[in-house]
Amino acid sequence: MFEFEIKKKSSETRARTGVLQTPHGEIKTPVFMPVGTRATVKTLSSEDVKKLGAQIILGNTYHLYLRPGQEIIKLAGGLHKFMNWDKPILTDSGGFQVFSLSKNRKITEEGVEIRSHIDGSKHFLSPEKAMEIQEDLGSDIMMAFDECAPYPADYDYIKNSMERTLRWLERCKEYHSDMSRQALFGIVQGGMYPDLREISAKETTNIDLPGYAIGGLSVGEPRELMIKLLNHTTPFLPENKPRYLMGVGTPDYLFEMVEAGIDMADCVLPTRIARNGTAITSKGNLVIRNAKFAKDFSPIDEECDCPVCQNYTRAYVRHLINVDEILGARLLTIHNLYFLINMMEKIRLSIEEDRFLEYKNEFYDKFGYTYHK
Amino acid sequence: MFEFEIKKKSSETRARTGVLQTPHGEIKTPVFMPVGTRATVKTLSSEDVKKLGAQIILGNTYHLYLRPGQEIIKLAGGLHKFMNWDKPILTDSGGFQVFSLSKNRKITEEGVEIRSHIDGSKHFLSPEKAMEIQEDLGSDIMMAFDECAPYPADYDYIKNSMERTLRWLERCKEYHSDMSRQALFGIVQGGMYPDLREISAKETTNIDLPGYAIGGLSVGEPRELMIKLLNHTTPFLPENKPRYLMGVGTPDYLFEMVEAGIDMADCVLPTRIARNGTAITSKGNLVIRNAKFAKDFSPIDEECDCPVCQNYTRAYVRHLINVDEILGARLLTIHNLYFLINMMEKIRLSIEEDRFLEYKNEFYDKFGYTYHK
Repeated sequence: MFEFEIKKKSSETRARTGVLQTPHGEIKTPVFMPVGTRATVKTLSSEDVKKLGAQIILGNTYHLYLRPGQEIIKLAGGLHKFMNWDKPILTDSGGFQVFSLSKNRKITEEGVEIRSHIDGSKHFLSPEKAMEIQEDLGSDIMMAFDECAPYPADYDYIKNSMERTLRWLERCKEYHSDMSRQALFGIVQGGMYPDLREISAKETTNIDLPGYAIGGLSVGEPRELMIKLLNHTTPFLPENKPRYLMGVGTPDYLFEMVEAGIDMADCVLPTRIARNGTAITSKGNLVIRNAKFAKDFSPIDEECDCPVCQNYTRAYVRHLINVDEILGARLLTIHNLYFLINMMEKIRLSIEEDRFLEYKNEFYDKFGYTYHK
Repeated sequence: MFEFEIKKKSSETRARTGVLQTPHGEIKTPVFMPVGTRATVKTLSSEDVKKLGAQIILGNTYHLYLRPGQEIIKLAGGLHKFMNWDKPILTDSGGFQVFSLSKNRKITEEGVEIRSHIDGSKHFLSPEKAMEIQEDLGSDIMMAFDECAPYPADYDYIKNSMERTLRWLERCKEYHSDMSRQALFGIVQGGMYPDLREISAKETTNIDLPGYAIGGLSVGEPRELMIKLLNHTTPFLPENKPRYLMGVGTPDYLFEMVEAGIDMADCVLPTRIARNGTAITSKGNLVIRNAKFAKDFSPIDEECDCPVCQNYTRAYVRHLINVDEILGARLLTIHNLYFLINMMEKIRLSIEEDRFLEYKNEFYDKFGYTYHK
């Protein structure tokens, strides 16, 4: 299980296509994973997500641990059964939310004491607890418990944090040693410091695991810095294992990560901006909420063949968003996810046909990106 | 157009089945009409509503007049095109919302001056304006501009209001005299006073129209009073025209109105209680939001074959409602509408097979209704 086979390598870049085997079917990479934080990709049912062509979704351990709780999901037979999703699921470790959502957290070598962002109740998360919860969730891919350090942060803070994340990874693997049904991925940290990224990547990949992720990028740093560190870090990850860049979901970042040799990414961006009234289109993002679309009876994206663009107009979606009708958020969510999933499919095809850079330039031109031609 | 053919009459009650022709297809009666207030049945797309088997939906003139405004919908080619719904639409006159939503309204013989419940802006609604807006919306069935009087209200208030509603109906028909593409239905008022109901019914039906409605019932009065007035009023409506009871949507009120000889009804109830976490089931309403369903992995209704009951559990839907995930409201909306639409189909079948009362008693027993056996 969790075999990863590289199918084709780009001759001009580090881009590659591959197939990752999981207990719930295979995943064609590079892949974008929609985020289903609380056992639903917001506004969508599992059937909806499947119809959009998603190959794998992400669940958030911290949120599911708080509500409905690991016991209920375990009783249901795992997250797949609970939400009726029979394709692969990746769960994060809760680390990111512990640091981004909970106030009054206290980090020790043992783990993190937190107060729930919902009711203020006290909880203790540790590498072992993160593994226990994810085992109960029954995800195909589990993530190691790490600290996603803030940006900016000074060298010593990042160094200590990165080293602790390495020790936590050892404990994760100690707790979860049987990878036959659930794979554990380690996470490379190191902030914006190239030498720490190198150490973290080498030490993390010294631990034999079915896959590796890069965390702590796309956390607010400038674009050029993100791309520099991405391209600096990726070469230290083994060729023959899936590589996952955490928290990336704009079209350009997805192209850049593929170019750097990354195979998987996830982000709430397409679904979050949908709920705020923004559509991703082949000609750039459109703030459909704007009054200028009130009488625009064309589809969101002329070139898109998603069910929303086939059936509804900008004026209609704008009206729904304007009056806060749930359907507006839903239609834009469907469109945005379809757009990215379709884009990833075209990216895979362009790699197979060894014209990735050509496709990237074509896409950037049309989208209106003016950098990195 | 708008021919109404009675197919079968119950031998024990006044229940009947029929077919109403409209420019957007035929409607089998008795029928329940889901409410799509602001050009969407809340949480659902037009495709979703069609899949549920809805034959006709209702749009709210007052809401659509305020946002997006009649001009935009007219530009789109009417409400059908705006929301991509190609089956029949009935629009109310705005009268109900004028009286229930807007404060500082001023009623005169000419019409009603209101302040918008959204931004406080001033508007003047009249029989002529209500017709103009509904003509722009392009609904198949337009409703006359009436006053839906409050409950309780004294005799003189109701008498004056009912008489003004009759004068307003004359003006509606004067403005909208061509019924070839859009039918105008008159509305019987008269509060809880049987003599006023009789006068209103006789005077309203003296005006030749393609259909007639009963308004001002189910506005907070006791159940027995509602059923008494319903059965008192309906016989004054012509046999050969469709009869519409406004604002009714609980299973028992739907059975009672069919028994009284009514053909059409609408209500926000099934969709509103869905968003609050309540499911209508064959064994009564279930407050799925309740903690007791947290570990209940059975479907919402064992006997239901809707997509929600086929794919998801009470525990899952309860979790979604509990964490305010939009999907929870959506799944319960789908289930509740499916339940009522399916129930109406079974009611039609029971009339065709002349066993309406048998089906009613069976349904009431199982649902847990203890009255009116």
